[in-house]
Amino acid sequence: MTELLEGICTTRAIRRYRPEPIPEDDLATMLFAATRAPSGSNRQPFRFVVLRDGPVAREAKAVMAEGFQRIWSAKREADGYDSGSGADASSPKARMARTMERFVERFADTPVVVLACLRRYRDPDPVEGASVYPACQNLLLAARALGYGGVMTTWHRAVEDQLRPLLGIPEDVLMAATIPLGRPEGNHGPVRRRPLREFVYEDRWEGPAAWAVDPDGARFTSAGPPRTG
Amino acid sequence: MTELLEGICTTRAIRRYRPEPIPEDDLATMLFAATRAPSGSNRQPFRFVVLRDGPVAREAKAVMAEGFQRIWSAKREADGYDSGSGADASSPKARMARTMERFVERFADTPVVVLACLRRYRDPDPVEGASVYPACQNLLLAARALGYGGVMTTWHRAVEDQLRPLLGIPEDVLMAATIPLGRPEGNHGPVRRRPLREFVYEDRWEGPAAWAVDPDGARFTSAGPPRTG
Repeated sequence: MTELLEGICTTRAIRRYRPEPIPEDDLATMLFAATRAPSGSNRQPFRFVVLRDGPVAREAKAVMAEGFQRIWSAKREADGYDSGSGADASSPKARMARTMERFVERFADTPVVVLACLRRYRDPDPVEGASVYPACQNLLLAARALGYGGVMTTWHRAVEDQLRPLLGIPEDVLMAATIPLGRPEGNHGPVRRRPLREFVYEDRWEGPAAWAVDPDGARFTSAGPPRTG
Repeated sequence: MTELLEGICTTRAIRRYRPEPIPEDDLATMLFAATRAPSGSNRQPFRFVVLRDGPVAREAKAVMAEGFQRIWSAKREADGYDSGSGADASSPKARMARTMERFVERFADTPVVVLACLRRYRDPDPVEGASVYPACQNLLLAARALGYGGVMTTWHRAVEDQLRPLLGIPEDVLMAATIPLGRPEGNHGPVRRRPLREFVYEDRWEGPAAWAVDPDGARFTSAGPPRTG
């Protein structure tokens, strides 16, 4: 299944959407694919609140947009997006800043926003995300398969206190991710990451894995936040 | 990309492996695909410790096997795998019990075990899994693309106190998931889940989404742990 592999390696974070809505059939197909993901003991505790054009959905998207703008402004400053190479408008950093600016400015108009949730069945736990984020990744991959694109963010947490009562989300439910979806203005394509050897160890932590080499043509991260690895 | 969609919907949890090793090229391809996953601010904090045939790897797999056997025994009892429909050897519950029994008994001989980790760059957080579990899902899908199979478990936590010093994993690293991989003895194929309408809401928590209907031929969960939804 070479197309499966290719699809995985070419699913980019898409933050610019054309204004057209997503047909309900396609939405159902994407969410069906999302829910094929694994979860602990196959308990299937993932839930998806889909926000489109209803009055509550519009209000929720506006609340998120306001929170996202606030976070982005702080991050732009803190991560120095306008200094260093960011001062050059043609740099990757400056391009990313323009994309983010547009993303948060127009967020309320995103065709579809999916709020992925985890219905907890035990106390909060560092590995509980194993039962919701695989489904989020399936959703992003399925979107790409159908010609859409999206991005996963947790920035809704800045406005969680407003969103929870507005959407009626119970206290024991984790609001795990916000995933805007739409037809991309840009394109999917090979994603950039650090060299594979930085991620893959053998036998023990930081044990070298000589075989962990990137394929020909792999693209590497050239700019971004400070490296932590 | 229909094959991408089909691959997502037919990636089963594979717990029975043929004894053959996985060529290093294939391992590299799978891990490359894993690391194409998104992470918060594209910080790429996921790390993969690959356990194959080295002496430390063998010991770690044996330690995990012992922990898994303990967890499975307790779960078999607690979830009543041998009572109710489980008393009928041909029931899905009894079949699952046999698969699990074999999985834990032979775990130490699994060709490859990948321990997926998260190198934390801030305090533990309920949404930190967003930066490691998408990569785990990519790994499982890429395995399926190349004719392998695996399953994601967090059962390593029963023996984390032994594994951490053995593998030299720093205290600030989350041991997020254990993913055994190998050539499947069984087959991939459509997975079973609850009806889509139980997962998908519109506009608000539990808001009905009339369009969220399963495609023709969808298969449904017929047995398993108590429903929490």
